[in-house]
Amino acid sequence: MTSSTRVAVIGLGAMGYGIAQSCLRAGLVTHGFDVARDRVESLRSEGGATTPPHQVASDLDAVVVVVLNATQTEDVLFGDAGIVPFLSKGAVVLACATVPPDFAREMETRCNAHGVAYLDAPISGGSVKSAAGQLSVMASGSPDAFEKAAPILAAIAETVFPLGDAAGAGSAMKAVNQLLAGVHIAVMAEAMTFGMTQGVSPETFMQVIPKCAGTSWMLENRGPHIVNGDYTPHSQVNVWPKDLGIVQDMARKTEFEAPIAAAALAQYLAAADLGLGTVDDAGVAKVYATRAGLNLPGDT
Amino acid sequence: MTSSTRVAVIGLGAMGYGIAQSCLRAGLVTHGFDVARDRVESLRSEGGATTPPHQVASDLDAVVVVVLNATQTEDVLFGDAGIVPFLSKGAVVLACATVPPDFAREMETRCNAHGVAYLDAPISGGSVKSAAGQLSVMASGSPDAFEKAAPILAAIAETVFPLGDAAGAGSAMKAVNQLLAGVHIAVMAEAMTFGMTQGVSPETFMQVIPKCAGTSWMLENRGPHIVNGDYTPHSQVNVWPKDLGIVQDMARKTEFEAPIAAAALAQYLAAADLGLGTVDDAGVAKVYATRAGLNLPGDT
Repeated sequence: MTSSTRVAVIGLGAMGYGIAQSCLRAGLVTHGFDVARDRVESLRSEGGATTPPHQVASDLDAVVVVVLNATQTEDVLFGDAGIVPFLSKGAVVLACATVPPDFAREMETRCNAHGVAYLDAPISGGSVKSAAGQLSVMASGSPDAFEKAAPILAAIAETVFPLGDAAGAGSAMKAVNQLLAGVHIAVMAEAMTFGMTQGVSPETFMQVIPKCAGTSWMLENRGPHIVNGDYTPHSQVNVWPKDLGIVQDMARKTEFEAPIAAAALAQYLAAADLGLGTVDDAGVAKVYATRAGLNLPGDT
Repeated sequence: MTSSTRVAVIGLGAMGYGIAQSCLRAGLVTHGFDVARDRVESLRSEGGATTPPHQVASDLDAVVVVVLNATQTEDVLFGDAGIVPFLSKGAVVLACATVPPDFAREMETRCNAHGVAYLDAPISGGSVKSAAGQLSVMASGSPDAFEKAAPILAAIAETVFPLGDAAGAGSAMKAVNQLLAGVHIAVMAEAMTFGMTQGVSPETFMQVIPKCAGTSWMLENRGPHIVNGDYTPHSQVNVWPKDLGIVQDMARKTEFEAPIAAAALAQYLAAADLGLGTVDDAGVAKVYATRAGLNLPGDT
């Protein structure tokens, strides 16, 4: 494939829009699709193509699927308006949502049956790195899938971790990462509110902890949202019941006990119960604040 | 105080020995004490003085207490052979162990009654940073205590966080840090062993996660111990039932619920039950491996 590579990005949310921008910047012919019409129009204004998927499907070299979960991924690929049956043999699907490894293996099999390659390609890095073409991609798939996906990966990723020659390994690693990331956000909220009960302000917490052994990537990324009282969703609370739910499902199947992940999951479910599902995931701090009767920054 | 500052370091373990070395390197007259005679002799060979504490007490400007816990701290300061009654008025105690804030406040009051200043000065950074004079110190105490401790802090710390004008605030911040650090080690072990059940090797885990959003300071520091199967204790499993126990005691007093810290504490208690109390705290991974029937690197 050359710079005439034709790619469709399906799902123009926080991550997908940045991926589409990165493809455009790399000189790829980039189609963008989303149920939200304003996202599609916005991408068009940056040079994106917006011909309906089925009209361009047979011309596409690659489809990047950046939707919310397994159900949406399956719908985009094989649902009533699924794109895979319309792709040319030799095209490749890059599936970026966080999904169970078994689901990734099933999608690989079904894509291959249509002569379409499949790269299990979950991503990490957040919306800022997505827009900068600096994502980390936890990738697994056949050598053929990797080769066909190469121009896309070059456009969107700073680091590609090649994790195996079949789908599933990428999603397994993503689940491991999400276990950690989900716990780190929730325990940051637990520690920050615990500190408040001991006279440690959120501001002081964020001045001290990032320079101590108790820091984490998520603490440094999400902590400021609480200090600023700004819960504009970069990544929603609702992500975590889904992703930590995938972790718990995988763990249960192998009779593996993950008690810390379970404790974190309970906090996100409590946040959703409080009506906070669609706020930024740092909003899990409100669960602790509500229980303890604390006022977080920005609370009235 | 000048370079003729006379300091005694009580407790020459992984952290205290490095503190004593840093004091020597800064040109301070440094006395080292420990129940382990070989540690004292080792410090003597590096230029340390080893006159028994009570013979030098009245000449000391500062005493740094780097023992395991509150009980040992109280014993060193006020026990049968306690040093505080023998110190000159105007000396300062720097108390570095992780202790409850209430205990720090009590020690401050009792030291002050002897005319001795008290700096609540828990430390973070590990043995390597200790030896390099690059610790983080979470310090609180009177302006007088800070002033008298200044030459010591300059010798041992890269960063001093001034957290308030009375003892307690330093220990409160340390408890917050320990909540995070203790959870981060245990969840690292949980995620690494979960990964193993999904075909992700510990080596691959450590290649990928440090470059993703799931990373933490503790993961990057302790993860290699598991990959190398090396549980030489840099910091022991036994630290965490103590420190997370302090967190839970503090939380209970204010009716604060810390469920993620509780889940992590349970794993360290399980490790101690398995006879792993004195191995490196990365050994908490063996709790998960034992439950799940996994062989960790180095297992026979």
